[in-house]
Amino acid sequence: MEHKILDCTIRDGGLVNNWNFSVEFVQNLYDGLSAAGVEYMEIGYKNSPKLLKATEPNPWRFLDDSFLKEIIPVKKFTKLSALVDIGRVDPNDILPREQSVLDMIRVACYIREVDKGLELVQMFHDLGYETTLNIMALSSAPEHQLLEAFEMVKNSPVDVVYIVDSFGSLEPADIEYQVNKFKAMLPNKQLGIHTHNNMQLAFANTLTAMRNGVTFLDSSVYGMGRAAGNCHTELLVGYIPKTRYELKPVLGVIENHMLEMRQKWEWGYIIPYMISGLLNEHPRVAMAYRDSEDRDKFMDFYEKVTSPEASVSPTNK
Amino acid sequence: MEHKILDCTIRDGGLVNNWNFSVEFVQNLYDGLSAAGVEYMEIGYKNSPKLLKATEPNPWRFLDDSFLKEIIPVKKFTKLSALVDIGRVDPNDILPREQSVLDMIRVACYIREVDKGLELVQMFHDLGYETTLNIMALSSAPEHQLLEAFEMVKNSPVDVVYIVDSFGSLEPADIEYQVNKFKAMLPNKQLGIHTHNNMQLAFANTLTAMRNGVTFLDSSVYGMGRAAGNCHTELLVGYIPKTRYELKPVLGVIENHMLEMRQKWEWGYIIPYMISGLLNEHPRVAMAYRDSEDRDKFMDFYEKVTSPEASVSPTNK
Repeated sequence: MEHKILDCTIRDGGLVNNWNFSVEFVQNLYDGLSAAGVEYMEIGYKNSPKLLKATEPNPWRFLDDSFLKEIIPVKKFTKLSALVDIGRVDPNDILPREQSVLDMIRVACYIREVDKGLELVQMFHDLGYETTLNIMALSSAPEHQLLEAFEMVKNSPVDVVYIVDSFGSLEPADIEYQVNKFKAMLPNKQLGIHTHNNMQLAFANTLTAMRNGVTFLDSSVYGMGRAAGNCHTELLVGYIPKTRYELKPVLGVIENHMLEMRQKWEWGYIIPYMISGLLNEHPRVAMAYRDSEDRDKFMDFYEKVTSPEASVSPTNK
Repeated sequence: MEHKILDCTIRDGGLVNNWNFSVEFVQNLYDGLSAAGVEYMEIGYKNSPKLLKATEPNPWRFLDDSFLKEIIPVKKFTKLSALVDIGRVDPNDILPREQSVLDMIRVACYIREVDKGLELVQMFHDLGYETTLNIMALSSAPEHQLLEAFEMVKNSPVDVVYIVDSFGSLEPADIEYQVNKFKAMLPNKQLGIHTHNNMQLAFANTLTAMRNGVTFLDSSVYGMGRAAGNCHTELLVGYIPKTRYELKPVLGVIENHMLEMRQKWEWGYIIPYMISGLLNEHPRVAMAYRDSEDRDKFMDFYEKVTSPEASVSPTNK
């Protein structure tokens, strides 16, 4: 099975800037990815503003089909996907695929919610969409829950199951181990990989996954994504030998947009995110630290998060 | 054999800022690396100012034993090394090891100069130093030259033979292949790895080398090294399970020095360096581009270096 790149700059990058992307940028990105031969672009979240009690409109966080049709009146090479979260998506918001610009709906869930995730998958599948199940925080998933999840997934219509290194804490040897487990347990499913770059391993982990048979490769242009960001789209497009891929249009997006955006918003290899990756922890504590006056006090941060007394992780509160 | 970290911030980082390091910084770095449990620090080049026709003093480029004794009067945990280049080192400048602060002298050479490199190694070995031979630009070395080189190396007293990914063009699968070849051909030598981070693979490549039996791991703090820089010392110290290593002192060096230095001098993941890595080329063309007004014109740079007509690489002129 040939692999595919899925660019999630808008969706994961939106976690950096609260989806403060201009329509022009999103259109430029879509055109650039199409010219580059990138197979999918995740254009945002399709969650419900009502369910999230949103007080302000946010077109990329709450994708709307008629808005999408307006801004992308003619589809080019790249297919479009949207991500939804368990409990945050309203089934009534989802049109049948033939009435939508979207081709794929991806469902993000933690290991304990796989049953709920698969209910959504079934619904989107029945509406005609390609579907994926993205199991987050794999590095913290207990083995027995994973095995139970595999049983449910096996019998579902989901097209692709994603290995998600949410905390950027895995290395290539871990990825190889996980991929082989997923392959053995889910022989009838395609696999995907979504990495974070906390320890500068996102590209290496993605390559390792690809070499071990994973077909869907997530990335974002210039790595734009939450905290340390993701595997860089330009690295995949530039490095993977595939006649279809063209690096230049991706370089154009970086040159024309990403350098400036990186000045305004922060993501990438930054020491507190490196530390949260090392510790296999959610980056939220590090993100809060980067928003404080102490942002560059790396020794102090490290002491706080590794002190046996201090429980700074919100999940432990 | 237990692996060892060799920090080359001063030596390789000096290629970024013309070794414009204060004595205080070098002392702080030495103290930090010692407290962190890093085994070696490369404190500069021991080339000859006369042979290089230098018009200005440069203490870290032309290391002097009496100067070193002054600034590091008491050795701590970390051993000190210096690098020399073929044809640039004056044998008369090298004291016997017991009169020097240096513990190790490393010889950098291209594959075609391995005989000359080994002559120097023999001399430094006879003077009592630990020695390494660093074979640069491995990604461009013709196989038959490599096999000839192995024959010479086998019979030399050199302690460590380095695999050097000068152009940052190798990925973990390539590293594994090279390491296995070196191991098979040089069963009586320790191996080392020196990586560059053009494609964000320096840490992954170093980990791969380590897992395949390489014992000497080069790195620099915050990755400071020529062009895209090196594997980051803080990643090795933080990630490798070894009771001796302490991350906090390395974080201190970053917090107190490297953030400011990174503002003044440029290294790291930068698109033209990514492109030179992709193309397996020396970064000199990209470095010149970054020094020009066109520094951020990535599409233009990519067109120039990939155009079949234009031979922009100085090596082809």
